Amino acid sequence: MHDYTEAAEALQVTFDHEIPITGHIGIRVENYDGKRLVLSAPLEPNINHKATAFAGSLNSLVTLAGWGLIWLLLREWNISATTVIQDSTCNYRRPVTRDFTATCFKPDDAELAYFARMLREKGRARLELQAEMRENDLVAVSFSGRYVVRVH
Amino acid sequence: MHDYTEAAEALQVTFDHEIPITGHIGIRVENYDGKRLVLSAPLEPNINHKATAFAGSLNSLVTLAGWGLIWLLLREWNISATTVIQDSTCNYRRPVTRDFTATCFKPDDAELAYFARMLREKGRARLELQAEMRENDLVAVSFSGRYVVRVH
Repeated sequence: MHDYTEAAEALQVTFDHEIPITGHIGIRVENYDGKRLVLSAPLEPNINHKATAFAGSLNSLVTLAGWGLIWLLLREWNISATTVIQDSTCNYRRPVTRDFTATCFKPDDAELAYFARMLREKGRARLELQAEMRENDLVAVSFSGRYVVRVH
Repeated sequence: MHDYTEAAEALQVTFDHEIPITGHIGIRVENYDGKRLVLSAPLEPNINHKATAFAGSLNSLVTLAGWGLIWLLLREWNISATTVIQDSTCNYRRPVTRDFTATCFKPDDAELAYFARMLREKGRARLELQAEMRENDLVAVSFSGRYVVRVH
């Protein structure tokens, strides 16, 4: 069994040490249960001209939710690899007016198995992930990102 | 004639006062010549796990290059309006390994005239803008964003 709490804490340390701007945005690893990763950030440091959250901060959180989920999967699989985002699409459907969270969902088992096999056989694989933010049960931001992973 | 230097300085003040996280990213209004807007940011506060620029910071800069260009156009036209991003697509083609700039290009005259007419007649209009980052003359990031503008 994986210790998901320990994994989430290790991801937080990685954000803090390796991507220092995440400290200014206030990004926290809220929860990882083996199926989805939830990151959070406070509104206050990310406020914009409309007293809502700045789009760049929202984009940072969803981008890192996808990146973080892959980081956690690689850790579970004991694969040492580097992940970068290749492209993404982000829909800002509703303004975000309070502290916010982004949730990234683990793909289905078949897709994950293919991804892991490509990594082991080719040393390189792509994964497309979806993430979203909700406020009052309505989708505020939806995101789709394609990541490229290379084994060391 | 418009004073583009004064306009660029006013945009810098707007970023500083209204979107405080831009100070942590280090966003500067580099140049506006009436045709294109160039924003810059230093690598150091935006560094990531690969010693390149964090995708969220790159996305923030291109998103604001588009937002800023519209802010400048509205100022030239003496239209008081609020701009938000609706959706965007961002391609991270090459890693960004040094201080970076984002350039947003003014759309052609026909598109701009239609945009201005919609704003004046309907009080609301959309504009799609392209922005990019280059390093060593190669495109590192390309961005397309759709913005919604509402007259006050």
